[in-house]
Parts: sequence; C-alpha cells; structure tokens
Amino acid sequence: MRLLGLDPGLRHTGWGIIEVEGNSLRHLGNGAVASDGTLGLSERLVQLYDGINQVIIDWQPTEAAVEETFVNKNPVSTLKLGQARGIALLVPSLHGLAVEEYAPNKIKKSVVGAGHAGKHQIHAMVGMLLPGCKISNEHAADALAVAICHAHYAGSNRSLKKATMMVGRST
Amino acid sequence: MRLLGLDPGLRHTGWGIIEVEGNSLRHLGNGAVASDGTLGLSERLVQLYDGINQVIIDWQPTEAAVEETFVNKNPVSTLKLGQARGIALLVPSLHGLAVEEYAPNKIKKSVVGAGHAGKHQIHAMVGMLLPGCKISNEHAADALAVAICHAHYAGSNRSLKKATMMVGRST
Repeated sequence: MRLLGLDPGLRHTGWGIIEVEGNSLRHLGNGAVASDGTLGLSERLVQLYDGINQVIIDWQPTEAAVEETFVNKNPVSTLKLGQARGIALLVPSLHGLAVEEYAPNKIKKSVVGAGHAGKHQIHAMVGMLLPGCKISNEHAADALAVAICHAHYAGSNRSLKKATMMVGRST
Repeated sequence: MRLLGLDPGLRHTGWGIIEVEGNSLRHLGNGAVASDGTLGLSERLVQLYDGINQVIIDWQPTEAAVEETFVNKNPVSTLKLGQARGIALLVPSLHGLAVEEYAPNKIKKSVVGAGHAGKHQIHAMVGMLLPGCKISNEHAADALAVAICHAHYAGSNRSLKKATMMVGRST
C-alpha cells in the first residue's frame, strides 16, 4: 500500500509518500505545498488544493493520513490552521482515499518511541526509518512521520482484524 | 451582478443567491448544505464541497461573500468551524469567483442597521429586503444577509471608485 502523509498549515502544508510492503517501509517522495501570504485567503486555499491535488495525481497513493491539529491557545491561529486542515482532509477524500487522523503525540510515539520528542529527533528518526530519503524541510519531515505512524497503526489494525477473524472462525 | 452569500458551518452551511441591479435586490434562491454527522470528517467536508459546488453550477453567481468566523472561546468549535469555512472559501474561488469576507457585526449593521441584532431581527429584515423570498432556515437567512451586505459594500466600493475617477479627471 502507498501512503500519503500530510502536515497541514496555511503557509506550508508538508507531504510525504511511502510504500509499505509487510514490515518494510520505502520512501518515495516528500515536499511542501506553499501558499502566497500576499494573496487573499480563498486564493491561498486554492493554492493548497492545487498542490495537494497534484501530489495525489503524481504519486497515486492508496490511503492518506493527516496530523490532528494541536488546538492552539490563540484562537486566530486555530482558525487559520483549521481552514488549511479542511483542504488537507478534503482533497484525498475527493480522490476516494480513506483519510485517517492521528494526534501529534501518537505520531511522535510511533516514530521516536516517546510522545514528547522534539522536531530534530523526529527529523533524524524519519531519516533512519526511511534510508536514503532526502527530507526537503521540517513540514515534509512531519508529513513523513504521519505516514509512518499510519503504516504502523493501519498494519496493527489489519493484523488485529485478521486475528479477530481467525478467533471468530475457531470458536 | 449575481451574488452568492455563504454562512459556513460543519453541520449546515447556509447559502443564498441574490441579483443586484443598481439599487434593487432580487432574491433568486436559498438553502443549506448539510453534512452527515455519522460520517468521518473528511467525508463530511466532501459533502459540503459537493453541495456548494452544485449551488454554483445551478445559479452561476458572479461574486461570493462569506461570513467571517466569530472566534469562539471553545477552541475545538473554532477548529471545526475553520475546517468548514476552508471549504466555503475554497469552492467559489475554484470557480474563479472573487470571495469577500465580512465580520458578523458588519453584516448585521448593513441588514438591520445595528451591529448587535438578534437572529429573528435579521431573519425578518432579510424577508423585508427581499420581498417574496421564502427563507428555508436560519442558516439560509444568515447567508442571504451576507449577500445583502456584499451588495451594499461592493456597490459603495464601485460608487466610490467611480467618484474617485471623476474627481481624478476633473483635477
């Protein structure tokens, strides 16, 4: 399965694509979609829409995962992020992909092993988990971390389902 | 000019279409796009996207206006609203429409004449400003109020521009 991870932000939305085969992860691509701060809000959202849309067309992922937003104490920032996040959730779903959401702590834990890791630790760990991967920037690193987290949990969910089905059959 | 007003919300996004000719306003249509609360967030945003898209296809507005979000004290609500608002700003812009934003107080003032009017007052005043209009629900009433506000300000901006140009020519 091919996973798209997204780290939404109005100025920069990070993206990362990984291929998952059994327990092995392979890096395919990463980057960030930027919006032009001199434009109006609706035009900036169109830039995010176009950018994410192009990533999906180029890489043809089969599932998507988006970082859950840390609800900021500053409501104006929360609103801005919410608007960008709306686009990040919308576009993969318009392409028919299932979209999972993961809390920041869950992502950190599944990548670094601890829920309170710093930016640098995540960046370094993503590089180790995806050998040969050149990470474009911090937004792309976070997006790859979301994709890795999804690979971890989607895998567990499937194993769990399989186990449950087997238990179901044997009883 | 034909104006689309939108009152964004995750559960219900109100819409209203009015035609403006000189100083006269004419009601064309109104309603609300709903999203199904039992679905995942990304699927709900697709429902809003599809609904707003269909309104634009059906009514072919030439400009759009969206209510500015009142930043709530509850950050979770603010985030939810932000996500829905992202879609309301995006879709008209994808159709090439200019999208204006108006603060709730500005909308109330241009419809009722006071910045702190209640829901019922707005509903009643929208009905009086658009004779013969059957308002579907409160979301649609708010959306029509946004469109009326835009008609007011867009008109003033144009008159102002015309006046400025005339002054420019005469000096």
